[in-house]
Amino acid sequence: MKVAVFRKAHFNAAHRLHNPAWSDDRNQETFGKCNLPHYHGHNYDLIVQVIGDIDPETGYVMDMKVLKDLIKEQVEDRFDHKNLNLDTDEFKTLNPTAENIAVVIWNLLRPHLPKHLELKIRLYETERNFVEYPVG
Amino acid sequence: MKVAVFRKAHFNAAHRLHNPAWSDDRNQETFGKCNLPHYHGHNYDLIVQVIGDIDPETGYVMDMKVLKDLIKEQVEDRFDHKNLNLDTDEFKTLNPTAENIAVVIWNLLRPHLPKHLELKIRLYETERNFVEYPVG
Amino acid sequence: MKVAVFRKAHFNAAHRLHNPAWSDDRNQETFGKCNLPHYHGHNYDLIVQVIGDIDPETGYVMDMKVLKDLIKEQVEDRFDHKNLNLDTDEFKTLNPTAENIAVVIWNLLRPHLPKHLELKIRLYETERNFVEYPVG
Amino acid sequence: MKVAVFRKAHFNAAHRLHNPAWSDDRNQETFGKCNLPHYHGHNYDLIVQVIGDIDPETGYVMDMKVLKDLIKEQVEDRFDHKNLNLDTDEFKTLNPTAENIAVVIWNLLRPHLPKHLELKIRLYETERNFVEYPVG
Amino acid sequence: MKVAVFRKAHFNAAHRLHNPAWSDDRNQETFGKCNLPHYHGHNYDLIVQVIGDIDPETGYVMDMKVLKDLIKEQVEDRFDHKNLNLDTDEFKTLNPTAENIAVVIWNLLRPHLPKHLELKIRLYETERNFVEYPVG
Amino acid sequence: MKVAVFRKAHFNAAHRLHNPAWSDDRNQETFGKCNLPHYHGHNYDLIVQVIGDIDPETGYVMDMKVLKDLIKEQVEDRFDHKNLNLDTDEFKTLNPTAENIAVVIWNLLRPHLPKHLELKIRLYETERNFVEYPVG
Repeated sequence: MKVAVFRKAHFNAAHRLHNPAWSDDRNQETFGKCNLPHYHGHNYDLIVQVIGDIDPETGYVMDMKVLKDLIKEQVEDRFDHKNLNLDTDEFKTLNPTAENIAVVIWNLLRPHLPKHLELKIRLYETERNFVEYPVG
Repeated sequence: MKVAVFRKAHFNAAHRLHNPAWSDDRNQETFGKCNLPHYHGHNYDLIVQVIGDIDPETGYVMDMKVLKDLIKEQVEDRFDHKNLNLDTDEFKTLNPTAENIAVVIWNLLRPHLPKHLELKIRLYETERNFVEYPVG
Repeated sequence: MKVAVFRKAHFNAAHRLHNPAWSDDRNQETFGKCNLPHYHGHNYDLIVQVIGDIDPETGYVMDMKVLKDLIKEQVEDRFDHKNLNLDTDEFKTLNPTAENIAVVIWNLLRPHLPKHLELKIRLYETERNFVEYPVG
Repeated sequence: MKVAVFRKAHFNAAHRLHNPAWSDDRNQETFGKCNLPHYHGHNYDLIVQVIGDIDPETGYVMDMKVLKDLIKEQVEDRFDHKNLNLDTDEFKTLNPTAENIAVVIWNLLRPHLPKHLELKIRLYETERNFVEYPVG
Repeated sequence: MKVAVFRKAHFNAAHRLHNPAWSDDRNQETFGKCNLPHYHGHNYDLIVQVIGDIDPETGYVMDMKVLKDLIKEQVEDRFDHKNLNLDTDEFKTLNPTAENIAVVIWNLLRPHLPKHLELKIRLYETERNFVEYPVG
Repeated sequence: MKVAVFRKAHFNAAHRLHNPAWSDDRNQETFGKCNLPHYHGHNYDLIVQVIGDIDPETGYVMDMKVLKDLIKEQVEDRFDHKNLNLDTDEFKTLNPTAENIAVVIWNLLRPHLPKHLELKIRLYETERNFVEYPVG
């Protein structure tokens, strides 16, 4: 049976929710305070889940130090203390909702993990709002 | 692939575990301190999970403000600062265990969500006792 | 210099805020939802702080097992799974606000601690509302 | 003896640390990633402490609903989902460090509290960095 | 539909990661600080999940007091304040990684639960490193 | 008025409570499970508090990056993943109770901080047992 291992990381970033194809009014109505023009920000808590078999020699599904370094390289160094809308390629045209950020992080990490390991992302925008991808 | 979004809420309520079809002794033996006649109470932490596809226009699975208001209307306004056994229709004859409260909350929220969205409830009675419905 | 040691405990109880010398209207206006007649409840988190010198033989200010047992005897066994207004002598005539509960707990524990040790109580009614006694 | 009551609140904001009297190099060297030009952000957790005597009629040091509303009006409505540097009068010329934000919040709340009540502010910029004002 | 009930427990233990079939160099390279010879330790937080149908008479999937006592007997009394490598039969030859500890705990609890109930283990080695078994 | 800044850190270590001047029976009776011969361990959470005036040029009481690095150098690198009794000079003859560890950490950090800044240590051995030094 499979075991899941989880590693928690975090980054602090500014963002603003906005659809450039919409009028200002529709943006304001849809995104409320999250649409304010000068950005606001969050302490994002990220939990990366990797699922696989236990290696009988190490007792590990995956070396957590390797996963920690991978998250730092691919996620924290890219997004920490940044303005997601202005400073990153990923959200130049993609709205930085928690849902979209989770999918982006999955796409950033997936190529760096062995194919036999499954990957899931949980992202906390605040303690009260969070997302998980993929589901099921 | 599907994304899950989670919204955390809470309410404070009194309750007592009791099966009126049983003798006092059997109730006491089964429910222990939770059967004491004058009620006790909890800070219930509720996590509502909604699963669906990301809307490409908004980047949302569902507007969290809509979900927040729905939880307030259907759950918090109904149960907060209430005695679950005496003050609510839902637990007049149903034992207010964490399991039953979770199912009741699912039934209260389900009709108000679009059919294509899946719904799950996690309810913390204390930090050490919690439940989730449905599973799998 | 003095060292403080802290022990965390908890109890779940029902209560209602009410001043019997007042009219129902004034009670309702002052205490709002906390005045509802059938009680509501909380998971109370209690942090007991004891201040003193380190005993050079043990390295302890006070044996935490002794403190843990004292809190169980004097506080948890008395209040856990009880209705504070109906089931306890302490709140028969005293309004069970977090402030008053903290002072009552201090008075219950103080006689059982050696005189050279200082005592402080922090009580969380919810994660967002808590009190400390005494101050300074 | 005095009792302290605490109310927790929060707001999400963007900021950037910068001293306009300094060169870019000195700013970068001093503030590091916090000086990045396009802002980053935080989920600020705020704990407001009010110290006073228990009112024997209510059992309250202060009505927590009044304190909650005051924090919403004076702090949350002013700073939540804002860019502290660009959108607020308070940080137009004052560097929005956690220390300065705590002092600003104290100054915003102090005039609205009765004189006989003492006021302290604790502000969490992240779970690992936080400040308290005043001390002692 | 099934309901999951969760019970949180904890134990404090020392351990060291080491594969006796390997050279000291390979152990050091693979396990890093976790291989240091004199052991280090953790506060392990354990969440036991039991899945089943709600009993209509009790409103319980399973009596949490029974589960609490079972965890105490089978897990806490066995591992709390122990050196996992030296003091336990389970890890005499099995490397006490979080993954292996979770599987061992599952194997210890499984025989004591009714067959119609499903069992899952989540184990926190630290707040940032945790595992779950089985998955899916 | 003074401002306090806090920085949270952590380390995982093994320890055993034991007074070599005492008989085995007295050690066992005093320290209970904490006296077991092969050590157990904890995830120690450390909160370092520094009190001083805000520097008007930076808005800082102290640069948190400097404090973070100092804690890493003086505390984490020394104690993390170590056996406090066997691997450290500080606890060769001093009983590694939470109280004594807090005083040792204060003594390790104090010489590296400017004299005008006040220093306090809070150390969590578990979520339920913690200490603070100095007090008042």
